[in-house]
Amino acid sequence: MIETQTSVRVRFSETDAMGIVYHANYLAWCEVARLALIESIGLNYRKMNDEGFHLPVVEAHLNYKYPAKYDDIVVLTARIAERPSVRIKVEYEIRANGKLLATGHTVHVFVNLQGMPVKPPKETAKILLGAFDSKK
Amino acid sequence: MIETQTSVRVRFSETDAMGIVYHANYLAWCEVARLALIESIGLNYRKMNDEGFHLPVVEAHLNYKYPAKYDDIVVLTARIAERPSVRIKVEYEIRANGKLLATGHTVHVFVNLQGMPVKPPKETAKILLGAFDSKK
Amino acid sequence: MIETQTSVRVRFSETDAMGIVYHANYLAWCEVARLALIESIGLNYRKMNDEGFHLPVVEAHLNYKYPAKYDDIVVLTARIAERPSVRIKVEYEIRANGKLLATGHTVHVFVNLQGMPVKPPKETAKILLGAFDSKK
Amino acid sequence: MIETQTSVRVRFSETDAMGIVYHANYLAWCEVARLALIESIGLNYRKMNDEGFHLPVVEAHLNYKYPAKYDDIVVLTARIAERPSVRIKVEYEIRANGKLLATGHTVHVFVNLQGMPVKPPKETAKILLGAFDSKK
Repeated sequence: MIETQTSVRVRFSETDAMGIVYHANYLAWCEVARLALIESIGLNYRKMNDEGFHLPVVEAHLNYKYPAKYDDIVVLTARIAERPSVRIKVEYEIRANGKLLATGHTVHVFVNLQGMPVKPPKETAKILLGAFDSKK
Repeated sequence: MIETQTSVRVRFSETDAMGIVYHANYLAWCEVARLALIESIGLNYRKMNDEGFHLPVVEAHLNYKYPAKYDDIVVLTARIAERPSVRIKVEYEIRANGKLLATGHTVHVFVNLQGMPVKPPKETAKILLGAFDSKK
Repeated sequence: MIETQTSVRVRFSETDAMGIVYHANYLAWCEVARLALIESIGLNYRKMNDEGFHLPVVEAHLNYKYPAKYDDIVVLTARIAERPSVRIKVEYEIRANGKLLATGHTVHVFVNLQGMPVKPPKETAKILLGAFDSKK
Repeated sequence: MIETQTSVRVRFSETDAMGIVYHANYLAWCEVARLALIESIGLNYRKMNDEGFHLPVVEAHLNYKYPAKYDDIVVLTARIAERPSVRIKVEYEIRANGKLLATGHTVHVFVNLQGMPVKPPKETAKILLGAFDSKK
């Protein structure tokens, strides 16, 4: 298992006319958390992009329990709990003010710059699986 | 069953550095489709808001199959296939250039202006169920 | 002078916790209007991109007079009133419900895929100046 | 003069198909910087909202010199250099990797919850002017 925590502070631009954070923005936060997770094991997404790989979302799921509001400090937990294969599943818990706001997951596959699914770059796969296996 | 179709044209602001539409934006499109669905049966979301009700997303799910690109005409199908109760489930199909880009669903509950779950406003529930039952 | 009108309907995702459209979204609308303007004279921005050119914003200015709200039909006027040179200035008027919501302008230069400023592609310049001069 | 610095790290969601940060997102960053500025002198925008005041943007201007990219650490300087009156002008400098990316300003007026322009709340005005005058 690989897990990391990061946080964002809610921006006014992220709110909507219900006075709470617009639901789609949680996906952008999940991405912030996911890229922090990747970074925490020594990978760098920008470098991965420069080498010709992307890791797009092929599935996204969110359960919203309690709204976030402007200026909240939102704590994001991202976790890889299933051994990565061609598909990488990342799970999320989103909290603020001691409350669980949302849970969810995304699923990813590696693609090349033309958007075609490809095998994970070797070095990346090695680091990812190494980190996963060492933290069981 | 209630179903409606609407379309959006991809804005440059909706793209990301992968050269495709950023995945979170599909949720905003689903909302456009959902509100068109609501409108198609004679309800008006803005009026509902003015009367003190919101219909936030409590669950969202998307499967991404093929990316949308800048300037694509995206056809959105929204469908209520399960009889609405306290929870309303809306299903989506997102297409462009004859291809299925994504499928998904959202689940909603009525809340008041304080964000507390409430029963659907009576008139709204009547119109919604009437439309659902008449189109089986 | 080249001028065109287009419209957008305000999405819930474009609102903020003030209950009105978030101010930054007007820039995305200006872009919708600008690309409609470009298209109205027979140019195609997507094709321009494919040929290796972008037309980024180097200056943006907006004066906000009256807010747009969810579900408003917003009418966007885009206008090139100064003969395009290396810099292209586009002016905007944004209206809804018979009211002037905002005015503004953006300034653009052509860049290549590496982001370096370049001369306008010849054919594009010809079409653009031809349209401008024919509609004085 | 009042001045403060804050920083954001570019999110993938903030990029566009040019591979750089979408220009409208700079306005959201300016807001982050502006609210940090307000906070630095002991005011709290969320509390201001709760008391019935908003401080919307009535004018926005940006000059873009160099693009920000995914994962850049962007340093935002916000400054009130003109004594606040009914209008408050905030100036910005946006930097990354030692380069000046953009400069700009926004102008604000206080409005009530109905969006009507009002005098600044007394206590707020006192704190704001006190801070401005003490740091000349």
